[in-house]
Amino acid sequence: MAALDPSVVVAVVGAGAMGQGIAQVAAEAGHPVLLYDTRPGAAEAAVAAIAQALTSLVGKDKRTAAARDAAVGRLRAAGGLPDLAGAGLVVEAIVEDLDVKRRLFAELEGIVGDGTILATNTSSLSVTAIGAGIGRPERLAGLHFFNPAPLMALVEVVGGLASDAGVLDTLVDTAKAWGKSPVRCRSTPGFIVNRVARPFYAEGLRLLQEQAADPATIDAVMREAGGFRMGPFELMDLIGHDVNFAVTRSVHAAYFGDPRFQPSLIQQELVEAGRLGRKSGRGFYDHAAGAAKPAPRTAEPGPRPHRVTVRGDLGPAAALAGLLREAGVAVEEQPGTGLLVADGVTLALTDGRTATARAAEDGIAPLVLFDLALDYAKAARVALAPADGTPAEAVAAAAGLFQALGKAVSVIDDAPAMVVMRTVAMLASEAADAVMQGVAGAADVDTAMTKGVNYPLGPLAWAERIGLPRVVGVLDALARTYGEDRYRASALLRRKISATQIAQI
Amino acid sequence: MAALDPSVVVAVVGAGAMGQGIAQVAAEAGHPVLLYDTRPGAAEAAVAAIAQALTSLVGKDKRTAAARDAAVGRLRAAGGLPDLAGAGLVVEAIVEDLDVKRRLFAELEGIVGDGTILATNTSSLSVTAIGAGIGRPERLAGLHFFNPAPLMALVEVVGGLASDAGVLDTLVDTAKAWGKSPVRCRSTPGFIVNRVARPFYAEGLRLLQEQAADPATIDAVMREAGGFRMGPFELMDLIGHDVNFAVTRSVHAAYFGDPRFQPSLIQQELVEAGRLGRKSGRGFYDHAAGAAKPAPRTAEPGPRPHRVTVRGDLGPAAALAGLLREAGVAVEEQPGTGLLVADGVTLALTDGRTATARAAEDGIAPLVLFDLALDYAKAARVALAPADGTPAEAVAAAAGLFQALGKAVSVIDDAPAMVVMRTVAMLASEAADAVMQGVAGAADVDTAMTKGVNYPLGPLAWAERIGLPRVVGVLDALARTYGEDRYRASALLRRKISATQIAQI
Amino acid sequence: MAALDPSVVVAVVGAGAMGQGIAQVAAEAGHPVLLYDTRPGAAEAAVAAIAQALTSLVGKDKRTAAARDAAVGRLRAAGGLPDLAGAGLVVEAIVEDLDVKRRLFAELEGIVGDGTILATNTSSLSVTAIGAGIGRPERLAGLHFFNPAPLMALVEVVGGLASDAGVLDTLVDTAKAWGKSPVRCRSTPGFIVNRVARPFYAEGLRLLQEQAADPATIDAVMREAGGFRMGPFELMDLIGHDVNFAVTRSVHAAYFGDPRFQPSLIQQELVEAGRLGRKSGRGFYDHAAGAAKPAPRTAEPGPRPHRVTVRGDLGPAAALAGLLREAGVAVEEQPGTGLLVADGVTLALTDGRTATARAAEDGIAPLVLFDLALDYAKAARVALAPADGTPAEAVAAAAGLFQALGKAVSVIDDAPAMVVMRTVAMLASEAADAVMQGVAGAADVDTAMTKGVNYPLGPLAWAERIGLPRVVGVLDALARTYGEDRYRASALLRRKISATQIAQI
Repeated sequence: MAALDPSVVVAVVGAGAMGQGIAQVAAEAGHPVLLYDTRPGAAEAAVAAIAQALTSLVGKDKRTAAARDAAVGRLRAAGGLPDLAGAGLVVEAIVEDLDVKRRLFAELEGIVGDGTILATNTSSLSVTAIGAGIGRPERLAGLHFFNPAPLMALVEVVGGLASDAGVLDTLVDTAKAWGKSPVRCRSTPGFIVNRVARPFYAEGLRLLQEQAADPATIDAVMREAGGFRMGPFELMDLIGHDVNFAVTRSVHAAYFGDPRFQPSLIQQELVEAGRLGRKSGRGFYDHAAGAAKPAPRTAEPGPRPHRVTVRGDLGPAAALAGLLREAGVAVEEQPGTGLLVADGVTLALTDGRTATARAAEDGIAPLVLFDLALDYAKAARVALAPADGTPAEAVAAAAGLFQALGKAVSVIDDAPAMVVMRTVAMLASEAADAVMQGVAGAADVDTAMTKGVNYPLGPLAWAERIGLPRVVGVLDALARTYGEDRYRASALLRRKISATQIAQI
Repeated sequence: MAALDPSVVVAVVGAGAMGQGIAQVAAEAGHPVLLYDTRPGAAEAAVAAIAQALTSLVGKDKRTAAARDAAVGRLRAAGGLPDLAGAGLVVEAIVEDLDVKRRLFAELEGIVGDGTILATNTSSLSVTAIGAGIGRPERLAGLHFFNPAPLMALVEVVGGLASDAGVLDTLVDTAKAWGKSPVRCRSTPGFIVNRVARPFYAEGLRLLQEQAADPATIDAVMREAGGFRMGPFELMDLIGHDVNFAVTRSVHAAYFGDPRFQPSLIQQELVEAGRLGRKSGRGFYDHAAGAAKPAPRTAEPGPRPHRVTVRGDLGPAAALAGLLREAGVAVEEQPGTGLLVADGVTLALTDGRTATARAAEDGIAPLVLFDLALDYAKAARVALAPADGTPAEAVAAAAGLFQALGKAVSVIDDAPAMVVMRTVAMLASEAADAVMQGVAGAADVDTAMTKGVNYPLGPLAWAERIGLPRVVGVLDALARTYGEDRYRASALLRRKISATQIAQI
Repeated sequence: MAALDPSVVVAVVGAGAMGQGIAQVAAEAGHPVLLYDTRPGAAEAAVAAIAQALTSLVGKDKRTAAARDAAVGRLRAAGGLPDLAGAGLVVEAIVEDLDVKRRLFAELEGIVGDGTILATNTSSLSVTAIGAGIGRPERLAGLHFFNPAPLMALVEVVGGLASDAGVLDTLVDTAKAWGKSPVRCRSTPGFIVNRVARPFYAEGLRLLQEQAADPATIDAVMREAGGFRMGPFELMDLIGHDVNFAVTRSVHAAYFGDPRFQPSLIQQELVEAGRLGRKSGRGFYDHAAGAAKPAPRTAEPGPRPHRVTVRGDLGPAAALAGLLREAGVAVEEQPGTGLLVADGVTLALTDGRTATARAAEDGIAPLVLFDLALDYAKAARVALAPADGTPAEAVAAAAGLFQALGKAVSVIDDAPAMVVMRTVAMLASEAADAVMQGVAGAADVDTAMTKGVNYPLGPLAWAERIGLPRVVGVLDALARTYGEDRYRASALLRRKISATQIAQI
């Protein structure tokens, strides 16, 4: 139940980027570390590379020279697997090939002691399958670091069907002792991060496919309104489309064709064209030296609103009333269904319907919808979607309202649920399904997404902040608009809403 | 149009378990039987094994010695395919490989007479495809026995695209003459049984995936409330997860990814782990010698109800009022929507919604749902699902009501449509689709499921007994809860409901 | 921006049927044409075949001898790829193999000049992928002719990710100069025609699978009511089931299992059985010499209606009132919801629900639905679907009404949305999705379907004529009846309806 003592020898098999990073983490945490690689000289080179990396951190005042020397002193390249006999933990970080991993662990079992924990850093294979070949699969588990391991706090501690609970506890506590933020999950395709993150890419690609906006605009909205560190297109360009597309295909196949994980023709075409992103010099963006990054579509300045009427509760956008007042705009509050009226144009936070459908169904025209922002006070940009036929002056007036708050405005085509709201709702639904299926606890799912892919909020916490009925309403509107299972809301979200309603009976 | 005369020689190709069983059936029915196998000595060994099996039955007084001697006297191992020249019916029971079967039938065509019927015992290949290679495909059909053939009454008589109606008639009548219960079906993936039975496994696995209950509890509910001979998990352990998973994958692929046949990650993981069920010593259960079978979750005794109010028609649970009275409980009947009220807690038969959703939507709390039973008088167990937030005393009171009837109670998590109701509704929908698509007639589908996999009632008869509007209501509630095509109700069920309504216009 | 001058040399690589046809088109348009094929003598044979084809046209007075001589004089077989150095446009029409095409274009790039346009006639591969291997993919595009190229007006000009806009413009203008009807589209699976046409086959097959009617009846209804040149079954028999099934499978896989493109078990079984259509002598129909084509199911003459009441607007069937009057039937008009009442039986144009469901929901009995006709004045046949339980006399009365207009009547089983309406609604939805996803403009999609597969109207124009709310209503009814994503209505159709409603606020 306790972390491994720092005196316990940690062995790392595989001296690539991940293996190096893991070895560095363990050595800095005080463990004697053995690094092994089948390629002659690779382990020695990795030890040297870690030393250099630490020296560079000393130069940046992020480590003391003494700490570096101590860590480096604990690192040793192993000449062969038999040298790992004394290890208390072996972490495998070799090629993603089931048979190769199985053979390695089978060989290791004949070398290490009975109490040694075996861990795999696999990101895409079944921990259960990896453990199935060995004599005592209960001592094997997943220990999935994120790249670069010394910097990324997340570690997914993955239990296979046979993994012993005590082994998982030890790995969780050890990861904490190493300064990481471990989360527990069951071995299922994509574990937590590679599963729950899929809508982040998928909804961006879908919006692009439906011509809602260009990549630069969607990226800007996701960053400047959604609070994400990067938008989906720039992130995919960074990850590489070959890699990102392969993960999506793999998860789609692993979930037996679940439409929620449907790959994108657009990304496939980039792969076919060899436009793999930064690594090939071109993806959605041109990464050639000197290439200018395209600017997001940003609305011209519109007229400052004379007076704004807030009709009813704006929900997650409630801060707008105060922000408008602070900006010197006269605000009147009236009862209503959550609308803003400014100079004859009605604005509303997207509820998942297109502006056009909502205008027609609710009999409101002109109507301009705005997208979710993580924090309307801090957001530097907000996206707007006017209903079809909205006069240009009405769109300009809607833009003027947000511009009066100092925000840039991106007018996009009338896509249901817009950009941030659509993405967050889908992330929350996927996260809830993972919880419902026992893949991980809610807190661990949120931790995984904030620590593993830097989301500004965990999807479940974000959904609570928006309000679950609103999130499910958005998903239901998407499902009605598209008629696709892809947009189904997780049954767990529905259940939580009902449970809250029961309390009011 | 008539059965083959017992004087007609029946040849069986393939002396494995199925071939042996079919040969025994034909020989006991009075036919001279030739058994052939390409493996030298296999046919002779099979004849000896049949003789031994019959001797064993004589020992159990299930056959007379004379009957055994006569049947054994009709059995002969053939030395080569040419020995089959005089056969009037050849039944193939060799490896499930399309090319191998095609070659066999092509070779047989050059040997047997023009009037000889060719039959394949395939369970997974297209009868049309098997017949496509030969000169006169009209004389080829499927004759699919179930294992063990001498015991299982079902025979699927499968027509390929080219199969002659007269050939199919002869096979049906011959199977009847052999004491079997033949059903007719068109060659489509899974024929009847392997298609219609899929939800039996799939819904159990889905409930487990969503953590509704453990395998032992679900199995107990399916047996003791549903009247099934075995629950899905113990049955899959018996069949072997490798086999059951392969059939599901094959049917899923054959129906082009229809989500109704989606395989389960949980079963896949068992296969990956080598936990194949009884054959490997472990599956969902531990089958090691001396291993204790886990007990189903069973509620502690709750308080006996003082008085029960029955509000309206309980539908398939209508017998409960009488059973309660017989148990000495005071029962009052009032108009209403089909509820039981006992000591402040409301109970209702699941209508497909979760208890939590139903409590919230209908404004009833505390609410505890109960599952379908095949026969509430005979059921030894009933499952309950309380809405979220239901006080423990209310759950105990609900349990006490069924315990007063002498039943064990399993409290499960609040899964939509619960266990028996969900499974039966999905079986009925699949059965109805098979009928709508002309795969088989309704009576034959029901016969197939009672004779081929021992269901206590055919799914279509069961649905009629429950009431089609209730069954479709359950499926619609599942579809709304999950938002998945998987839970769509068969259009044929809807049509039958509408047709009944028309009669009342 | 202008068409290639006729003096520009056009080279065609691949001397099969398509290559020959393209070469003929270019030569007749005035270009010097080089034809090349790796098979020795094939190019020379192709030139001779073109000459013969033109001579045959001279014989039919479709060409002058001088025109033939001029065209033939412009055709030359090339001895090797290097001979193509002077070509201004090279059109590839070789085997559908990505690697082979890539190698060809890479080799061509080293031969032709910098300004030469490279075009591929691929029907199933990604233009982006074909172009990815070469140095200047911007000059490569798809130029997809339909077979036979000299007769079929449609040319899909397909832009890959890298294709230069000017190159596409030149190809469009050149195709126009050649007398063709070019359409522009983005490289996506199936381009326009092979994607949008899928429901034409799929819905016919689905109706057959659900036993709504036999192939001959469905074909007759599609021809004689729908105005299609051929029905789906006779057209598939012509195309060949191996080819048609392969295209469907390919599109289904390319769209990642989208259920809208789900292949049919029935067609698969034909392929398995070797019943490939005309080419093998048998498909849905027997094409053996002398085989009689089965007659469509046609109703016996029913009683002439005494008087018909038209209740409300019949929408696309509004012409029926006038036609009945012309036929001498007394017609009374009353307000209502779009029904025809004749001698106690109510008739209505299908709204997507089954007759049985509609009768039950709307409380109308007896009810007989009729199918969409392209033009009720000209239609020679109309399909009827009675609700379950409709008396035979009521069906006869309904038939009598259309027979009084001189039309044949086919009574089919009560399938939702019937035959023509179902097919047209699905075609329109697919077409709208293609437009929404930027594959092509609406006008080009309609042109593609009228010029490429001879539809009597483009699906989008047809949907406008029917009325979008009615089309979406039909799709929504199908989706409710079947519960399948397959029948989802395109979000673009919904949006257009809402946009129209906004104008009325």
